[in-house]
Amino acid sequence: MKVLIMGGAGMIGQKLLNLILKNKKLKNEEITEITLFDIIESPYPLNSSIPIKTKSGDISDPKTSIDLISSKPDIIFHLAAIVSGQAEQEFDLGWNINAKGSWSLFEAIRHKGDNYCPRVVFTSSIAVFGAPFPEKIPDDFFTTPLTSYGAQKAISELLLADYSRKGMVDGISIRLPTICVRPGKPNLAASGFFSGIIREPLNGKEAILPVSDEVRHWHATPRSAAGFLIHAAEIDTSTLNNRITLNMPGLSVTVKEQIEALGRVAGNDVVKLIKYKPDPMIQKIVAGWARNFETKRAIQLGFKAENNFDEIIKVYIEDDLNHKT
Amino acid sequence: MKVLIMGGAGMIGQKLLNLILKNKKLKNEEITEITLFDIIESPYPLNSSIPIKTKSGDISDPKTSIDLISSKPDIIFHLAAIVSGQAEQEFDLGWNINAKGSWSLFEAIRHKGDNYCPRVVFTSSIAVFGAPFPEKIPDDFFTTPLTSYGAQKAISELLLADYSRKGMVDGISIRLPTICVRPGKPNLAASGFFSGIIREPLNGKEAILPVSDEVRHWHATPRSAAGFLIHAAEIDTSTLNNRITLNMPGLSVTVKEQIEALGRVAGNDVVKLIKYKPDPMIQKIVAGWARNFETKRAIQLGFKAENNFDEIIKVYIEDDLNHKT
Repeated sequence: MKVLIMGGAGMIGQKLLNLILKNKKLKNEEITEITLFDIIESPYPLNSSIPIKTKSGDISDPKTSIDLISSKPDIIFHLAAIVSGQAEQEFDLGWNINAKGSWSLFEAIRHKGDNYCPRVVFTSSIAVFGAPFPEKIPDDFFTTPLTSYGAQKAISELLLADYSRKGMVDGISIRLPTICVRPGKPNLAASGFFSGIIREPLNGKEAILPVSDEVRHWHATPRSAAGFLIHAAEIDTSTLNNRITLNMPGLSVTVKEQIEALGRVAGNDVVKLIKYKPDPMIQKIVAGWARNFETKRAIQLGFKAENNFDEIIKVYIEDDLNHKT
Repeated sequence: MKVLIMGGAGMIGQKLLNLILKNKKLKNEEITEITLFDIIESPYPLNSSIPIKTKSGDISDPKTSIDLISSKPDIIFHLAAIVSGQAEQEFDLGWNINAKGSWSLFEAIRHKGDNYCPRVVFTSSIAVFGAPFPEKIPDDFFTTPLTSYGAQKAISELLLADYSRKGMVDGISIRLPTICVRPGKPNLAASGFFSGIIREPLNGKEAILPVSDEVRHWHATPRSAAGFLIHAAEIDTSTLNNRITLNMPGLSVTVKEQIEALGRVAGNDVVKLIKYKPDPMIQKIVAGWARNFETKRAIQLGFKAENNFDEIIKVYIEDDLNHKT
């Protein structure tokens, strides 16, 4: 069983790598080789018992995908993408990487020959949805993205579904919730504070809360995200009836509930490190985001996320606090 | 006001041309030039008071779109497509024409310069939906196409929406019902009988009904389709709040109701020309098709279709019976 992780240098790619190395198997088969691909060189543990190769390149060049599948990986995790903010500013780059890059991968697989039909797990995003929403988004809600990133993800989903329906690929697309608590340094993403108000105080640092604590959002841990990817790789896709795109489960909580959980887990002195400093621009962006999902199908199919925010904080503490990431 | 009709040789392209020639104006402005584009030479009336040009070519070649917009048409009706059955059989051709062709058009417009931002009316299809459906499909129902044609239409919708959101194009996508009564000769489309059982008897010929008369389907006349296109060209797209894709109104009737209407309009001797001859393959295909839609938004926005099937038959008699098409 050969595994290819595209976007292997990213945070979720690394979490996935670690989970695969821990499990050693996929679909009950021994993993014999892991290839990590990204635009940069992907880090990996030097003491791995499974051989790990790294490749770097640009997936907007069709030759890159042709090269990546030359060794016929059995399972391909496609996490490679330009992030939302950059795709919005650099229109061509976003479309080239996030849409044409996916398309090139599916085309390379289709043209490989020898009945090569690997499982492709594509990580999509709740950015395929655009406000206004119902309070709780059902599984059959339409995609009206309000960012180019969301449009590129929605288009990649449709491509993968059609190539899969035709038997050219064995695809599944999973739409991840916002990942929380995101380890590492604060970044400039508008969503950054959802993780920041937990991570920074736990590290003894101040964190800025730019929105009202009544804001509700949709979360899952990096550990759950890696679990979704593994489960998507192992699922029997013939049961999906050509509806291969799934909203992943998550936890819908308000910022107030996040902060209360932080108090329970780490005490009130830690909570005091959160400083409320309203930012109208971030407030406006966040107001356009989905707050809650039904995810009936994914739950039925056995995808699992956290049940309360205390658990989300504990996962961060176990997996990332005081770890180098 | 310059108008470009892509797919101008097709049945709806011709109906649209005739309606434009009759109206002489769009958005209250005189039409000064009409260009008809198709893969073949488009027919047009020689006695037109408005200058008509024709062009033919292949929209999968990006140069074609660059040439088509060189004269900066103010309104572009994009109806050009490979039909459903052919797109399913010829995978590359379908994707090249129906998806990459649309994309090339939007790219050509984006790169034209001089703040060129024409209205683009894109004709999409209810083929973006795939069974199972609710009995009546709401406006916010998701797109899970079960044909490559449907996937290509859904992707073109998403592209047009993102280019429009970015102010590069002024787009609107309309999803047409099955067009009934389709004039002309019987064709091999699985949906052909919906028109055939009306058109052939009215022309004194036998027609085959391959499905049960309990089958329900979603119809609008060619006249309504042309009307939708004109209305979409004239609508204020700023009121659409970036949700530029609309399910068009139509009439949901059973085959039995179609036949009863034919009896009322043309008498029982005409009805006797319909012969029931079950075809399991067509029955299976038709079972996967949408039966009814809510179309609340389109109705609110002033799109209008027929209210009963008698009217649909009368439109055929007025517009097409005994006319060369």
